[in-house]
Amino acid sequence: MASWLIRNAAVVTMDDDATVLPKADILIEGTDIAGVWPAGDAPREQHGTRTIDADGMVAMPGMINAHTHCAMTLLRGYADEMPLMPWLEERIWPFEMKLEEDDVYWGSLLGIAEMIRAGVTCFNDMYHYFEATARAALDSGIRANVSGVLLAFLPDAGERLENAIAFAKEWKDRGDGLLVTMLGPHAPYTCPNHLLDRVIEGAHEAGVGIHIHVSETKQEMEESLRDFGQTPVERLTDIGLLDVSPVLAAHCVHLTDSDIATLVEKSVGISHNPGSNMKLASGTAPVRRLLAANAVIGLGTDGAASNNNLDILEEARLAALIHKLDAGDPTVVTAQQALQMATRGGAKALGIDDRVGRIEPGMKADVILLDFHQAHLFPRHDIISHLVYAARAGDVRTVFVNGRPLMLDRQLQTLDEEEIYRQVGERLKRLVQ
Amino acid sequence: MASWLIRNAAVVTMDDDATVLPKADILIEGTDIAGVWPAGDAPREQHGTRTIDADGMVAMPGMINAHTHCAMTLLRGYADEMPLMPWLEERIWPFEMKLEEDDVYWGSLLGIAEMIRAGVTCFNDMYHYFEATARAALDSGIRANVSGVLLAFLPDAGERLENAIAFAKEWKDRGDGLLVTMLGPHAPYTCPNHLLDRVIEGAHEAGVGIHIHVSETKQEMEESLRDFGQTPVERLTDIGLLDVSPVLAAHCVHLTDSDIATLVEKSVGISHNPGSNMKLASGTAPVRRLLAANAVIGLGTDGAASNNNLDILEEARLAALIHKLDAGDPTVVTAQQALQMATRGGAKALGIDDRVGRIEPGMKADVILLDFHQAHLFPRHDIISHLVYAARAGDVRTVFVNGRPLMLDRQLQTLDEEEIYRQVGERLKRLVQ
Repeated sequence: MASWLIRNAAVVTMDDDATVLPKADILIEGTDIAGVWPAGDAPREQHGTRTIDADGMVAMPGMINAHTHCAMTLLRGYADEMPLMPWLEERIWPFEMKLEEDDVYWGSLLGIAEMIRAGVTCFNDMYHYFEATARAALDSGIRANVSGVLLAFLPDAGERLENAIAFAKEWKDRGDGLLVTMLGPHAPYTCPNHLLDRVIEGAHEAGVGIHIHVSETKQEMEESLRDFGQTPVERLTDIGLLDVSPVLAAHCVHLTDSDIATLVEKSVGISHNPGSNMKLASGTAPVRRLLAANAVIGLGTDGAASNNNLDILEEARLAALIHKLDAGDPTVVTAQQALQMATRGGAKALGIDDRVGRIEPGMKADVILLDFHQAHLFPRHDIISHLVYAARAGDVRTVFVNGRPLMLDRQLQTLDEEEIYRQVGERLKRLVQ
Repeated sequence: MASWLIRNAAVVTMDDDATVLPKADILIEGTDIAGVWPAGDAPREQHGTRTIDADGMVAMPGMINAHTHCAMTLLRGYADEMPLMPWLEERIWPFEMKLEEDDVYWGSLLGIAEMIRAGVTCFNDMYHYFEATARAALDSGIRANVSGVLLAFLPDAGERLENAIAFAKEWKDRGDGLLVTMLGPHAPYTCPNHLLDRVIEGAHEAGVGIHIHVSETKQEMEESLRDFGQTPVERLTDIGLLDVSPVLAAHCVHLTDSDIATLVEKSVGISHNPGSNMKLASGTAPVRRLLAANAVIGLGTDGAASNNNLDILEEARLAALIHKLDAGDPTVVTAQQALQMATRGGAKALGIDDRVGRIEPGMKADVILLDFHQAHLFPRHDIISHLVYAARAGDVRTVFVNGRPLMLDRQLQTLDEEEIYRQVGERLKRLVQ
């Protein structure tokens, strides 16, 4: 059993008391965090234990990207600053029509490489060719929740749904717990009730959760009220979708007070995606009201076509900033709350907070180290403040997932980036003409 | 005369046509950009010319921080998420009362080290012990506009003002054009007319411009209307302050249409500071209206106590994002416009656009190189989009100011960061008790 001893790190535990240990040692044994001690108090290394001197570094739980479409890295910067429908109809969907399974595999690996480098140790994905994304995740060693996107307007929607249910069943136990499968009906407005009914049935059959976009735009809210006489949340409640567990609802920008009460009552996980919501001008999610109601909130990047990176530290900063502006109050959505969403909140939203999101003995060793011995992080008055308001994803130097090092001192351990760039470059010649 | 040849870079020129050269060579001779050619067409290197192979890199004009208080790096993360007045009265001002000249010198060097690393080649500063900031700038080789902060409530305000005028006169020609001096009356609400009259007179005497906070908060706007029957811009116009050239007005969050017309008519440079405005909940500046009126706009970080870093690339991203959200329109404030503010707009706002802000023969060689051969910047559909929506300050690898390399491949050439950390750490023991 491989073991690693991280010595002398400042440790942001994200435990119940928001403890920050000024200098501590973390022992990783196999897939688990075996112990955390004040620096120097860890037991002497056993034969074979590898040691990292993390003096000047901050250790924290790996960040969780609670909503993305990983392979959309292929479309990074391909179409910006357009109104939503022309953006989808003229640029995104025609590109996606040409996608093949291996394009999604290599696009996913590109996104995974980016996320590992940014300290993201788990992502929740919804896209076409979901098996390719699952393979990419397993090949890289990252933790992932994967679901296929279901859109009723596709001619083979029924067949795709059955394939997605079969995938969810067959792949759910692969990868030593690193892979979790879900079903991914795109959104209430793209999925009629008969499709959602089968999704709910399939989720119960397969014993998996559901990942869905909910109330992203004002238009979605208005059309739902017009067409169904219900908000999207009311409609999903009515058909029983929110009784599946877990449900991850992405965006949740436009919510009534009653919607919020329902989401809390049903323990629905919410992915707040401030960067995408700003770039697409979708609106400001009611995060203050959600926090006040004790909702379960994580942070997501959405796809690289609407962000344009997969950087959860940046989302934490945006979350801490936009709600202050929106409220006209500098005291709301604190750095601590934003970092909580980026880690433990995301884990809870995905139903995996029994395993990850905290640095505590017994948790899976999804641990990252950031280099704080840098000008923009000096002096060190407040580590949590620095993480959210001053640090950058590039400050992440080392990343463990399930006890396995995926990056050591900025060197990726499981992926060949040059080969990823070569494969993506070749494929784009066909995709972009 | 030292010369450098940068080969094979993608060059973002920021010229009138927003040209991006896919692969080009840049020749630096002495302090100037001597020529720009398609890759391979540059003349052969003379004896002594040093060559940088910038294949996979993007070259662009150094970014300009149009409003900061550089030495406030000492206060980074020292007090966050507080209402403005308790923040100032209980935390910031008591700390600043203890400051000594050399604290400001070392705090300024810390901020300068951070800015060089982030590709910022020029900053516009207003603070106490301005000579220390000027010395720090000259010692580092960065370009700087420096003014002393003037606050009427300080008991020796009159003496400070005369010192600031003397400093502006004596230091204005130092540093081979790198140092520009200005006068820095803090804000209309902290400076009565008799002080501002002397500032205007002093600016004309010294032949320098003025750096001032204007209309940062709603309260400032309301109190100005209550106390003077005028907006802050109207009051400054009335007393003749806006006839000084250049005037850099920081923030400008709360403006009437008539204020905007005045700022444009008087060619006042505006520093838009979205990060600080969000963190302090000051409001959203009317940047769309200012752009439509052809106002001169740069980007500033404000001090590290209210940001909490000095990263203009991040400010460009925030500028491109918050106005889309504010307008409910994803097409406004484009990446191109945000990058323009970060470079050429800032230069124009500071009255130095004859020298910097573009990559063109005859301009001063303030040039930065960013490493684009990275997962989060791949594929390269659109370089301008990537700079604003996906890149990070840590992607900057090499920085020239006035033809002199201040950072080569992430190694600072003129500053000793370990000594800066040591000095700052020692001083904080006295300052924070």
